Amino acid sequence: MPTFDLAEHPHRRYNPLTGEWVLVSPHRAKRPWQGQQEEQSPDTRPTYDPSCYLCPTNTRANGEQNPDYASTYVFDNDFGALQEETPDGAYVVGDLIRAESERGICRVICFSPRHDLTLADMEPQDIRKVVDLWQQEYAELGSRDFINYVQIFENKGQIMGCSNPHPHGQIWAQRTVPVEPAKETTQQGLYYEQHQRSLLADYLALELETRERVVAENEHFVALVPFWAVWPFETILISKRHFQHIGQMHEEEKNSFAQIIKTLTAAYDQVFGISFPYSSGIHQSPTDGQAYPGWHFHMHFYPPLLRSATVKKFMVGYEMMGNPQRDITPEAAAQLLRSLVR
Amino acid sequence: MPTFDLAEHPHRRYNPLTGEWVLVSPHRAKRPWQGQQEEQSPDTRPTYDPSCYLCPTNTRANGEQNPDYASTYVFDNDFGALQEETPDGAYVVGDLIRAESERGICRVICFSPRHDLTLADMEPQDIRKVVDLWQQEYAELGSRDFINYVQIFENKGQIMGCSNPHPHGQIWAQRTVPVEPAKETTQQGLYYEQHQRSLLADYLALELETRERVVAENEHFVALVPFWAVWPFETILISKRHFQHIGQMHEEEKNSFAQIIKTLTAAYDQVFGISFPYSSGIHQSPTDGQAYPGWHFHMHFYPPLLRSATVKKFMVGYEMMGNPQRDITPEAAAQLLRSLVR
Ligand SMILES: O=P(O)(O)O[C@H]1O[C@H](CO)[C@@H](O)[C@H](O)[C@H]1O
Ligand SMILES: O=P(O)(O)O[C@H]1O[C@H](CO)[C@@H](O)[C@H](O)[C@H]1O
Repeated sequence: MPTFDLAEHPHRRYNPLTGEWVLVSPHRAKRPWQGQQEEQSPDTRPTYDPSCYLCPTNTRANGEQNPDYASTYVFDNDFGALQEETPDGAYVVGDLIRAESERGICRVICFSPRHDLTLADMEPQDIRKVVDLWQQEYAELGSRDFINYVQIFENKGQIMGCSNPHPHGQIWAQRTVPVEPAKETTQQGLYYEQHQRSLLADYLALELETRERVVAENEHFVALVPFWAVWPFETILISKRHFQHIGQMHEEEKNSFAQIIKTLTAAYDQVFGISFPYSSGIHQSPTDGQAYPGWHFHMHFYPPLLRSATVKKFMVGYEMMGNPQRDITPEAAAQLLRSLVR
Repeated sequence: MPTFDLAEHPHRRYNPLTGEWVLVSPHRAKRPWQGQQEEQSPDTRPTYDPSCYLCPTNTRANGEQNPDYASTYVFDNDFGALQEETPDGAYVVGDLIRAESERGICRVICFSPRHDLTLADMEPQDIRKVVDLWQQEYAELGSRDFINYVQIFENKGQIMGCSNPHPHGQIWAQRTVPVEPAKETTQQGLYYEQHQRSLLADYLALELETRERVVAENEHFVALVPFWAVWPFETILISKRHFQHIGQMHEEEKNSFAQIIKTLTAAYDQVFGISFPYSSGIHQSPTDGQAYPGWHFHMHFYPPLLRSATVKKFMVGYEMMGNPQRDITPEAAAQLLRSLVR
């Protein structure tokens, strides 16, 4: 029998941030695909679209008019999934039927007044303004009594449920810590208790030794395909310094962060020669006033495309009922992405 | 301030089977949708398609010819994500980089020789033959030394990554217990330890009292929208008798199971007047030889459509980074489904 080889044989990989596993099937990248093809979104957009509710000076569904903003612009989501005014309460029947009211605030952040740009097209100094706004929003929302977690994210591309191509992201801030950051809180906390060091700092040190999964690096950040990546071209941005949240980022780190976002998203756009769809999100410590010495600031990118601009990875039957599964290895994905960094 | 109302106010619900939460935003169903529309698959298919690799007598990619089967047909997946011959091994660097080889068997099950049918169109006595085959496969695969979990599932519809409309499902059987059934093993085990009763039996009793979320019921099974449902029209089939796996199902239960699958899938097809896409899967006890007195056999249905035949729920940015979120309440979904049961 041949010896076990990560690049050849089906295997499971462990995600220490969540405590969960992913199934990797390297040989399976060869199977033919006759299933659904995604539509490609047209790539030519005007710099200003009079019918876009995010463009400067336009009027939104609720009748409010956007200012003639010059860099970024933030406002409360007109159809937020969370609301500030939700009354407290719970609905409980025995141990098995349990609901709790949830208060929160949903915001939309326009990254640029230009309707035709994406983060990948923007200059680092303009992305820097987005980073500044994320920092302000984290501080402002996190300071509220009833906000204990601030989730900053972006859905990019129609395939990611994004209904408006104007460059924008969202913030959902809420009373409880959602499931995914809660897992990361537990796992990073346990690791810190055991080692008195950050899980992600130790992991980053391992990755910088081999560089096998590193995509890009600058003074303060590294972009890499995590060993346990689920999505075909999934990456993570990890800060070299161990800090808990964006509020602690200093000036140079903010510049580096903006720059590595530019580098990574521009490389993504080279993979299939199209504006690359993804969901991204920042994970950081809760804002409940407790200390989280184990938390290490990072940002995830989950892009769904697998084989081409129109063939994505489906997380369906086995993935929903069993666990996530991937075909190409993280190492192969990293090698391709690295070769596309300019 | 108004009092907290499940049908009006944003809230979280607890899933006792996994220990995780879902965010419910009932008011949000009203927001307009301008995003991606799914393509509708054409509904007219021939009873036999000469180019289908699942139709009787046709030749598959690997050169094998399907028999002229009359009811069901099972074969090893020509592009299985798991393989029987994988060598043992592991790749470990410290605590943070961990992979293990994984052995397994992937099979495809044709539900019918007719290319143009789905479970929803089939007669209960023909679905019963599928149930018989699931039972055999669970026993046969589960009896192998290196198989400790058998995942039976179906991806239906192009939107669910299904690349062939011929009615079929899959089985992925493997050495380790995947993440989702592992969570259910833990949660059901804890509940059983505490109460000496089945979690799902107790839950079912609560649901049968109010019937608010019950969709259909027969002698041995209940179809309902679980209180903690994530997907818009998600349902679960729960056996009235507490048993651990399909191997323990007796004759009448198998008939009832086939019948309730027919009832549920036929109701689904009425929701938007199209063949309703979903992923479904059976959760049951591992086949590692241990006793799992807490395990209670059930089947999940996860359908993605939300508003129409072409608008689905996107599980993207917030859902990936935070936790699942839904707009319509499980109670409203159950009411609609119940009204469509014939
Ligand atoms: O095996 P199939 O039908 O080719 O593939 C489909 O189901 C699998 C199991 O859920 C998924 O991993 C694939 O992404 C999906 O396209
Ligand atoms: O808020 P949007 O952009 O209208 O909506 C999009 O992002 C949300 C947060 O990930 C999802 O809940 C929606 O399903 C998706 O369509």
